[in-house]
Amino acid sequence: MGEVPENRYQILSEIARRRGLFWFSYEIYGGVKGLITLGPIGALIKRKLEDAWIRWFVHYEGYQLIESPVIGPEKVYIASGHVESFIDYVVECKKCGKKWRADHLISEATGLNVEGLPPEELEKIVKEKNVRCPSCKGELGAISPFNLMFETTIGPYSGNKGYCRPETAQGIFTEFKRLYNLARGTLPFSTAQVGRVFRNEISPRQGPIRLREFTIMELETFFDPKDSPPDISRILNIELPILSEEEQRRGGEEIENIPVKELIRKNKVKTEWQVYYMVRSKQFLNKLGIKDNFLRFREKLPWERAHYAKQLYDLEVLLSRFGWIEIAGFAYRTDYDLSSHSRYSGEKFVIKRSDGSEFTPHVVEPSFGCERLLYAVLEHSLRITKNRNILSLPPFLAPYDAAVFPLLSREPFVSHALSVFSLLRKEGLHVIYDDSGSIGRRYARVDEIGVPYAITIDGETLENNSVTLRFRDTSEQIRIDIKHLSSKIKELIDSSWKKTT
Amino acid sequence: MGEVPENRYQILSEIARRRGLFWFSYEIYGGVKGLITLGPIGALIKRKLEDAWIRWFVHYEGYQLIESPVIGPEKVYIASGHVESFIDYVVECKKCGKKWRADHLISEATGLNVEGLPPEELEKIVKEKNVRCPSCKGELGAISPFNLMFETTIGPYSGNKGYCRPETAQGIFTEFKRLYNLARGTLPFSTAQVGRVFRNEISPRQGPIRLREFTIMELETFFDPKDSPPDISRILNIELPILSEEEQRRGGEEIENIPVKELIRKNKVKTEWQVYYMVRSKQFLNKLGIKDNFLRFREKLPWERAHYAKQLYDLEVLLSRFGWIEIAGFAYRTDYDLSSHSRYSGEKFVIKRSDGSEFTPHVVEPSFGCERLLYAVLEHSLRITKNRNILSLPPFLAPYDAAVFPLLSREPFVSHALSVFSLLRKEGLHVIYDDSGSIGRRYARVDEIGVPYAITIDGETLENNSVTLRFRDTSEQIRIDIKHLSSKIKELIDSSWKKTT
Repeated sequence: MGEVPENRYQILSEIARRRGLFWFSYEIYGGVKGLITLGPIGALIKRKLEDAWIRWFVHYEGYQLIESPVIGPEKVYIASGHVESFIDYVVECKKCGKKWRADHLISEATGLNVEGLPPEELEKIVKEKNVRCPSCKGELGAISPFNLMFETTIGPYSGNKGYCRPETAQGIFTEFKRLYNLARGTLPFSTAQVGRVFRNEISPRQGPIRLREFTIMELETFFDPKDSPPDISRILNIELPILSEEEQRRGGEEIENIPVKELIRKNKVKTEWQVYYMVRSKQFLNKLGIKDNFLRFREKLPWERAHYAKQLYDLEVLLSRFGWIEIAGFAYRTDYDLSSHSRYSGEKFVIKRSDGSEFTPHVVEPSFGCERLLYAVLEHSLRITKNRNILSLPPFLAPYDAAVFPLLSREPFVSHALSVFSLLRKEGLHVIYDDSGSIGRRYARVDEIGVPYAITIDGETLENNSVTLRFRDTSEQIRIDIKHLSSKIKELIDSSWKKTT
Repeated sequence: MGEVPENRYQILSEIARRRGLFWFSYEIYGGVKGLITLGPIGALIKRKLEDAWIRWFVHYEGYQLIESPVIGPEKVYIASGHVESFIDYVVECKKCGKKWRADHLISEATGLNVEGLPPEELEKIVKEKNVRCPSCKGELGAISPFNLMFETTIGPYSGNKGYCRPETAQGIFTEFKRLYNLARGTLPFSTAQVGRVFRNEISPRQGPIRLREFTIMELETFFDPKDSPPDISRILNIELPILSEEEQRRGGEEIENIPVKELIRKNKVKTEWQVYYMVRSKQFLNKLGIKDNFLRFREKLPWERAHYAKQLYDLEVLLSRFGWIEIAGFAYRTDYDLSSHSRYSGEKFVIKRSDGSEFTPHVVEPSFGCERLLYAVLEHSLRITKNRNILSLPPFLAPYDAAVFPLLSREPFVSHALSVFSLLRKEGLHVIYDDSGSIGRRYARVDEIGVPYAITIDGETLENNSVTLRFRDTSEQIRIDIKHLSSKIKELIDSSWKKTT
């Protein structure tokens, strides 16, 4: 098991604000909880993270990628079950009127684990244990459900309710027929989406981890439950770190490293598609720089699972302040969504097998929270040394491909540096130029935001057109001819993606 | 002046649905007007279009890119003026209860241009001209303002209003201080954002053109109105096609090609920043394949301008069905937004010049509608020939970099083709494989979705490792060794970006 020093969160938060990774939005108006802004450095890394996810989970597999609307009409979310089931319980103080998320408040006041309990049980505990308002100590009122979707109205008719999507998945399920036809009418096929989703949390805490609005990267694989499994022949011996349902019911936290073939043989996963994506996801996190001993797959307990999930594994990453945090989920949604949309819309989503029998496709869904993954990658890439902080991001994720510096901030170094800068930019590299402060300070500045390579134009450059190329992680420098510079950097970035870690 | 054949819209719409460019969302529930889904091909092109915009307008300039939330608290949009001014007028039928956008209904019924008229005037015309409900011929009621923002509630308190952003700009203005500091406290500096925005249209028509939800690509340049102009020395002689305010007031539509230096000399643009971005945008559209004679810059008339804009030019593109359509706007927002947020929040956004005088930075904003630009690019790239339709997209925008085909759908061609496919994918190219149907049909299929290069594995491949590389636009074929294939394709795509058209 890995250990993460506690102060990583503080140091990263300070860098995040000062260097423009992320911060809380609308601070000039007192802020809104659960909303963050990704600054100029954070937004660049995030877009590269999305690109990496798309490359690994979509392009590599030959899957579809679509973009559907954020706003959906009420019917869609009645059919999906979100209007009824996508809720938390809220309790209001009778005295001061403050509202609280009931389960969190009760478990903090009593130490009991009350997750998944029905409202009557929660009310009973509030009375028996005399749980009071944390703010004014007033008496608490009745416990009522609170829907976590942001509600709105579409167009000028007040009855025409709509919601901001809580997941992108419904924008895929409702378009199943077209997508199936575009996949030339064959199963399995998969459709991915990367986009904003919205969850109107009652009182979000946990800073950048519990957001009211974030980017989800998700994938729906449609398959015949009696056929069309993935090819797992090459991953049978790969071990996954599992925290099983049984272990949790025993009150334990022991992680067991179980080979894929054992997970299947012992029926620990309900479909091979789930385990296939669990392996691909572990490999993806490794690629991003998160090592095996900081991740685990936790099987969610029945009362923790979303209403549509027959089985759900969470991929959790260990963070310094927040502990084990869900980064991705692997839900076996069965035919729940397609069948329900079929009932509500009257549209048929049934497919005929060659033997004549009919079925509604089943769905497995790997789903990543992009900002959480970004946060986890940042924290795990942060190297705190005596002299400086280094964001040791894999080069394919770095906000800039390289930095260009004149050794001294005067001619002829500046002109030469600017022409190298311009050359690299023309070659399609995303580079940053800096000529302010000592060269040591400039190195430290780009190390802190994760720029993997720094190029310095010095006296020798004027003589023989060579520059120094410095590597962020080792501070090592090599000399290289300007004419080989852009291909060398491209090659290094490319190989940082190809390298298995 | 260019001409666009009328049937382009029909042909493109048919291709769009059949091949997965875009379609109307939620059709199984009867659809929601103004919402579209980008299918697997459309979403790929759109992401490349965003990348191209970011490369051209952000990375090339060394600007900031950020991501702020969609949801904003009410205060932000009171300060921005949107709660008061971001409205259309709605009129309700007294008989059937249907609601209509008043100005559209009146101008269709009477032929009058009523844009920008106050509600009393509109009501007067309804009475005088006896305008009736188009649906049931019933009498129309009073005309009332309808706010075009989607309203919602943040968290569990019903008083806590919020809105889905109608532009990303406010997420930049509210963070001005941090962004200014990240720009090391110097002017001018610019911040860009690419993201979804929302406009709750009363009754959107015009298919993919008038959307309730779309992606905006916008840029705020903060500058000292007495200083910090852009470098326009190299664009002084570039001509821009202008439809001026005076020409429109005369009732004319004549476009005048005016050099930049004349626009400035004659005071036709209120800041040099506007004209700088107008030139960059014309060049960008040229790069995307839209030729000069299909675009114009229309100066918006005072009653057409957004409440924050002192001057506004629209970049319009001529489309087959919709005529001249706004693709981008160039607004001179002055210090309107920063001053207003300063008043409402109490925060100071004032900057001191070296001479001691103080000012609030001014803002110029180029803003592109991504889906509209995508639609315009698709329509302008469509080449309709007797045998097939070709989406002649610039290669850097194509949904796939290349297609790989075995000449015949059997061994050993298939294995060889799959290994070439896998090789190119490892080299970072996004390729598609197809072995179904005749080779001619496969060429036609990829031509129709804009894939610029097709690679065919044939008998000669088995002998000497060479393949044919076919060019979409000319159907010309060359033979090339497999080992040079990926670098050749990368070079072709690269040069399609660099080439000035």
